[in-house]
Amino acid sequence: MNFYESNEKTMNSRFNTIIRDLETKSIGLFQKDFLLTWEKTTEELESVLLVAEALKEMRDKNLSTRCFDSGLAISQFRDNSTRTRFSFASAANLLGLEVQDLDEGKSQIAHGETVRETSAMISFLSEIIGIRDDMFLGAGNKYMREVGDALDEAFLDGVLPQRPGIINLQCDIDHPTQSMADLLHLKSVFGGLGNLKGKKIAMTWAYSPSYGKPLSVPQGIIGLMTRFGMEVDLAYPQGYGLIPDVVELAVKQAHKNGGNLRIVGSMDEAFTDADIVYPKSWAPYHVMQQRTDLLLNNDHNGLKDLERECLSNNARFSNWECTEEKMKLTRGGKALYMHCLPADISGVSCKEGEVAASVFNRYRVPLYKQAGFKPYIIAAMMMTNRFEKPDAVLRNIEHGGKIRKFE
Amino acid sequence: MNFYESNEKTMNSRFNTIIRDLETKSIGLFQKDFLLTWEKTTEELESVLLVAEALKEMRDKNLSTRCFDSGLAISQFRDNSTRTRFSFASAANLLGLEVQDLDEGKSQIAHGETVRETSAMISFLSEIIGIRDDMFLGAGNKYMREVGDALDEAFLDGVLPQRPGIINLQCDIDHPTQSMADLLHLKSVFGGLGNLKGKKIAMTWAYSPSYGKPLSVPQGIIGLMTRFGMEVDLAYPQGYGLIPDVVELAVKQAHKNGGNLRIVGSMDEAFTDADIVYPKSWAPYHVMQQRTDLLLNNDHNGLKDLERECLSNNARFSNWECTEEKMKLTRGGKALYMHCLPADISGVSCKEGEVAASVFNRYRVPLYKQAGFKPYIIAAMMMTNRFEKPDAVLRNIEHGGKIRKFE
Amino acid sequence: MNFYESNEKTMNSRFNTIIRDLETKSIGLFQKDFLLTWEKTTEELESVLLVAEALKEMRDKNLSTRCFDSGLAISQFRDNSTRTRFSFASAANLLGLEVQDLDEGKSQIAHGETVRETSAMISFLSEIIGIRDDMFLGAGNKYMREVGDALDEAFLDGVLPQRPGIINLQCDIDHPTQSMADLLHLKSVFGGLGNLKGKKIAMTWAYSPSYGKPLSVPQGIIGLMTRFGMEVDLAYPQGYGLIPDVVELAVKQAHKNGGNLRIVGSMDEAFTDADIVYPKSWAPYHVMQQRTDLLLNNDHNGLKDLERECLSNNARFSNWECTEEKMKLTRGGKALYMHCLPADISGVSCKEGEVAASVFNRYRVPLYKQAGFKPYIIAAMMMTNRFEKPDAVLRNIEHGGKIRKFE
Repeated sequence: MNFYESNEKTMNSRFNTIIRDLETKSIGLFQKDFLLTWEKTTEELESVLLVAEALKEMRDKNLSTRCFDSGLAISQFRDNSTRTRFSFASAANLLGLEVQDLDEGKSQIAHGETVRETSAMISFLSEIIGIRDDMFLGAGNKYMREVGDALDEAFLDGVLPQRPGIINLQCDIDHPTQSMADLLHLKSVFGGLGNLKGKKIAMTWAYSPSYGKPLSVPQGIIGLMTRFGMEVDLAYPQGYGLIPDVVELAVKQAHKNGGNLRIVGSMDEAFTDADIVYPKSWAPYHVMQQRTDLLLNNDHNGLKDLERECLSNNARFSNWECTEEKMKLTRGGKALYMHCLPADISGVSCKEGEVAASVFNRYRVPLYKQAGFKPYIIAAMMMTNRFEKPDAVLRNIEHGGKIRKFE
Repeated sequence: MNFYESNEKTMNSRFNTIIRDLETKSIGLFQKDFLLTWEKTTEELESVLLVAEALKEMRDKNLSTRCFDSGLAISQFRDNSTRTRFSFASAANLLGLEVQDLDEGKSQIAHGETVRETSAMISFLSEIIGIRDDMFLGAGNKYMREVGDALDEAFLDGVLPQRPGIINLQCDIDHPTQSMADLLHLKSVFGGLGNLKGKKIAMTWAYSPSYGKPLSVPQGIIGLMTRFGMEVDLAYPQGYGLIPDVVELAVKQAHKNGGNLRIVGSMDEAFTDADIVYPKSWAPYHVMQQRTDLLLNNDHNGLKDLERECLSNNARFSNWECTEEKMKLTRGGKALYMHCLPADISGVSCKEGEVAASVFNRYRVPLYKQAGFKPYIIAAMMMTNRFEKPDAVLRNIEHGGKIRKFE
Repeated sequence: MNFYESNEKTMNSRFNTIIRDLETKSIGLFQKDFLLTWEKTTEELESVLLVAEALKEMRDKNLSTRCFDSGLAISQFRDNSTRTRFSFASAANLLGLEVQDLDEGKSQIAHGETVRETSAMISFLSEIIGIRDDMFLGAGNKYMREVGDALDEAFLDGVLPQRPGIINLQCDIDHPTQSMADLLHLKSVFGGLGNLKGKKIAMTWAYSPSYGKPLSVPQGIIGLMTRFGMEVDLAYPQGYGLIPDVVELAVKQAHKNGGNLRIVGSMDEAFTDADIVYPKSWAPYHVMQQRTDLLLNNDHNGLKDLERECLSNNARFSNWECTEEKMKLTRGGKALYMHCLPADISGVSCKEGEVAASVFNRYRVPLYKQAGFKPYIIAAMMMTNRFEKPDAVLRNIEHGGKIRKFE
C-alpha cells in the first residue's frame, strides 16, 4: 500500500450489499445499446440502478472508479443541452474515458457525408457514443439505430476493433437517462423499488408559453414507471396525446406488473391522492408530426402559422399549472414534485408557466438531487454496456483501493 | 520502484526549500473562492506563489503533479480568451482534472435558466469552476458571487457532494490570475518578494485605437502590488479614472505595507526612476458604466455614439505611448516593461498604440516568461482551494516519484 | 502483479518482431516537425509505420499505450474536419495527452494577434501541435513553419520548457497523416513494403460537382509512393496540373528508388494494369492560385466568377469517373481502390461524381480500414517526435503490462 491507495481496504457494508444484490441479477446489457427502457428486462433496469449506486458509494468514499486507462466517449448533441452534456462528461470522466464532441457545425457531415461512414470514422478507438436527437418525430430514435447498424456492420467487417455502445441521451420517443435517474431518485426517496408498488404517480401536461417541447419525457416516464407496479395517471387536455404506440405499450406493462395506467382529462383528477406528481409541458403528438414535415420541407411560413396556432391553443389551458391548491389534492398534500428541469416557473422564468414559484421553491432540493443521479446513471449505462460482469469489475476496482483525490 | 517511477527519489533542494517555506504559512485558502486578491492575506498570496513554484519545479524535473485521478474543472468564458483558456486547461491537466467548457451558446442558459440552477447542474462531479466575465461594470464579480452562493446552498442542502471552488479568470474589478502571475514574475526577476520593497512600479494608461478595454488589469495591479511595500504610481489622462473604491483600497494597503500609491497626470512623471513600467490601455470608469447601461438596453445607436466619442477622446492622448524616450526616464533607463498581452504595438498591430515596436521587441522574452507563470498560478489556486494542506500533498506526490513523461 | 496489470507479461511474437525491426532503424525524427514526407528519410518513414503497428498491437491486446501522465496536444483546424479531428483526439488519448482545440473563432487571434505570440502562449505545457491549414495555396505549409520558428525561438529563449512538435494535419502541399495511413494500408494489404516494388498505382483526377478541393492528397501520394519503387501514373485532364515543384521532386524520387512516375492524359491509360487506383478530384494548381489571390482581396464577385468558370470546366470531364468498366482495365480487374474519404459517389452523394456506387460499395471495407490506420499514424508521429528512443519506450510500457480496459 502506498500514498495512492486508500487506507480503507474494506468498503462499508452498503457497497457490499449493492454488489451482492447485483450478483443475483441476470444481465444482458453487455454490448447492447441503451435506446428504450422497454427493450430491457426489469432485472436489467435494476442492475443499472445498482451499478449507479455502487459508483456513487465509491466516489463518496473518495475511491477512484476508473476502469479505463484510455479510450473515447463520443457525444453528439443535435439539440441544445447543458445538464445532459455535463452529466455525460462527468460519467465518462468517472470511468476514465475522454469526451470528444461530434459537432456537426464543425464537421463535414453537413456536406452530405453518410451516417454510415461517419459512424465508422469516429469509432476506431471509441467505447461509447451518446446521442441526443429529439427534434423530429420519427427521426431521432431511428437515427440512433442507423448509427447502431453502421457500427454493427463496421465491427463485423473488421473495420472496428470494438463495437462502441450507444446511449440515447434523448430522442423523439424516450429519454432513458432522465427516466432512469428519476427512478433512482424514487428508489432513494421511497426506500427501495419494492416500495413503489401501488404508489400513484401523476404524469400530467402543464401549461407553457413555448411550444414544440419533445414528448420523450412523459413517454419515458409512463414507459418506465409502469414496470414497477405503480398507479400511473396520464393527464392532458384534449388534443395533447402522446405517441399512441407508447401509450398502448405502457398500458400493457402496467397490467403485467400489477399496476395501472389511466388517461384522465384534468390535472385535478390526476393529482388527487397522488404520491408523486410530474407536471411538464409537451407539444401534441400530431403537432410534432406536422412540425417535422414542415421542418423537412423548410416551410418557414408554415412553421410560423403552426407556432401561432399552437401557442393560442396552449393558452386555453393556462390553468394547467401546478399550484399550491393543486398540490393540496395530493396524498396528505405532500406528494413528491418532480421535473426534468428546466421548468417554466410562473413569475420567474415566464409570466404563467408549468409550476407556481412557491411549489417549485419548496421542492428545489429534491429536484436538484433528482438531477444529480444522472451522471451515475449514464456511467452505469456505459459500464454495463462495456463490461460483461460489472459486479466483478466494481469489486476489483474497489479492492484495488485507488483513491480519487489525494488527501 | 518500476518504470513508471522516477529514479530520483529525492528532489533537489530548491523544492524542499519551497515546501519548508510553505509549511510556515498559515493558509485559509481551503474551500474559499479566489475572486479578489485583496480578500486574501499576504501569507495566503505568498502561499499561492510557493505552490505554483513547487509545481513548476516538479514538472521541470519530469515528475507528475497529478493529485486527482478523475474530476472536472469547468470553464466559463463570457468573453474571448486564448491565453487564459490555455492556461486554465494546462492547470487542470497538471492536477489530473478534465476541462469541460460551459459554452452559453450551446447550453440552455440562453433560454432563461437561472444562475442558481445551472450552477448546481454543472457541479455534481466538479472540483473547480473558472469564470471570465469582464464585459459589464458591476456585473462580472457579482455574477461569480451569485454562482458561489448557489454552490454554497447546493452543498449545504446535500445536493452537491463537494462545493466546487471558483477562480476569477477576469472580472470587471480584478484579474487575479494575471496579477498573481505578474507578481511571480517580479519575484523571479527581482529575486524574492522582499526585494520588491521600495521598488517603483508605474501602472499607466496607454493609448490604443480601440475602446472598451476592461479596468481589471490596472485595478488588479494596484490592488496587489501595494501589498508588498512598492511605490506605485498610477498615471492616466484626465477622465480615465478607475473604480474609486479600488483606488481608495489600494492607497490604504500601500500605507499599511510601508509603500505608497500616487496618482499622477503624465506618463513621464510615472516613468521617472521607475523600476517597473506597466503601460496599458483601458476605458474610463464612467464610460464603462454608460456602456453597461447601453448594452443592457440594447441601445445600438447609443453604443455607436459612445464608441465614436471615446475614440475621438482617446485620440487626444495618442502620445501616451511607451517609447524608447520614455523608457530612458526609468531607473538607469532599464525598467522592466510588463504587459498582460496582447499589446497594441505601434506599427505592428496598429498604426499608433500602447508601445513602440522596439521597446516591445526588447522585452519580448521577459513578457512571454511573465505569461508562462499563469498556468502554474491557476493550478496553485486550484490546489490551495481543494486541499487543506497543499504542502503535505506536494511532499507526498513528490515522494511518490511518479514520472510525467516516460523516458 | 495486481488487477491493473495484464496477465500476459510476454506479448505475442508479432510485437517483438516489430520492435526488433524498429531497433535496426536510424531515426532522426526526435524533436523534428512532421511537415512533408519528402523531408524524412525512408528509414524514418518506415519507423513511423512500425511504431504505429506496435501501438496497434498493444491496444489490440488491451495493453495501455500511455507514455504521458499529463500534457496537452493542441489542435488547430483552419478548415473543417471530422475524421482527422477524431484521429488526432484518439492518438493523443492513446498516449495520455489531452486535446485542447485552438479555435480562432473563440480566441483573440482574430483580433490581430501575431502568430509568434500565440504560438508561445499555447505551448507552455504542450507536447504537440497539430495544424490543418489547406485553404490557401502557398500559405498553409508556410504558416506551420512560422509557428515552428516561433516555437524554436521561444524554446531557445527559455520561454518554453519544451519545444512542442508540429504535425501537419493537411496543408496546401502535403497531407502526410493521410498518405502515411495510406502507405500502412498498402503495407498491410500487400504484406510488406518490399512487395510494393514494381506495383503500379494510378493517382488520377476524378470528376466532382464541387470545386476548390485541395491538391494535398494527390501531391502527398505521388510524393510518398515514389519512395518505394512503385510505378506511379499521375493522370488528369489538360489544365489540372499539380504544383510543378512537387511533381518534379516525385519524378526524381521515383528514379532514385527504382520506380517511375508518368503523367498521362486519361484515366483509362492510368488504370490499365494498375494494382492500385486512387481516383480523386482536385482543383487545378493555377485555379488555386487565383482563388488564393481573390480570397486575400475579399473579391467575392471574382470568386463567384471563378467558381462558375471552374465548374463549367469540370463538367467537360464528367466522364472521369471510376466506373466498373474502368476497374476492368486494372490488373485482373481487381486493383485496390483507395480514397481519403469522403468520396463523391455518383447517385449517392451527388448526381455524377468521382466513383460509381457499385465500385465504392465493393471497396467499402478496405476503404474504412485504410482510414482506421490514421489514429495510429498520428500517434506514431507524436511518439517519434517526443521520444528519442521510441523502441525502448514501447518495450518498457509493454513490459509494464498495464491494461487499458479492466476486465
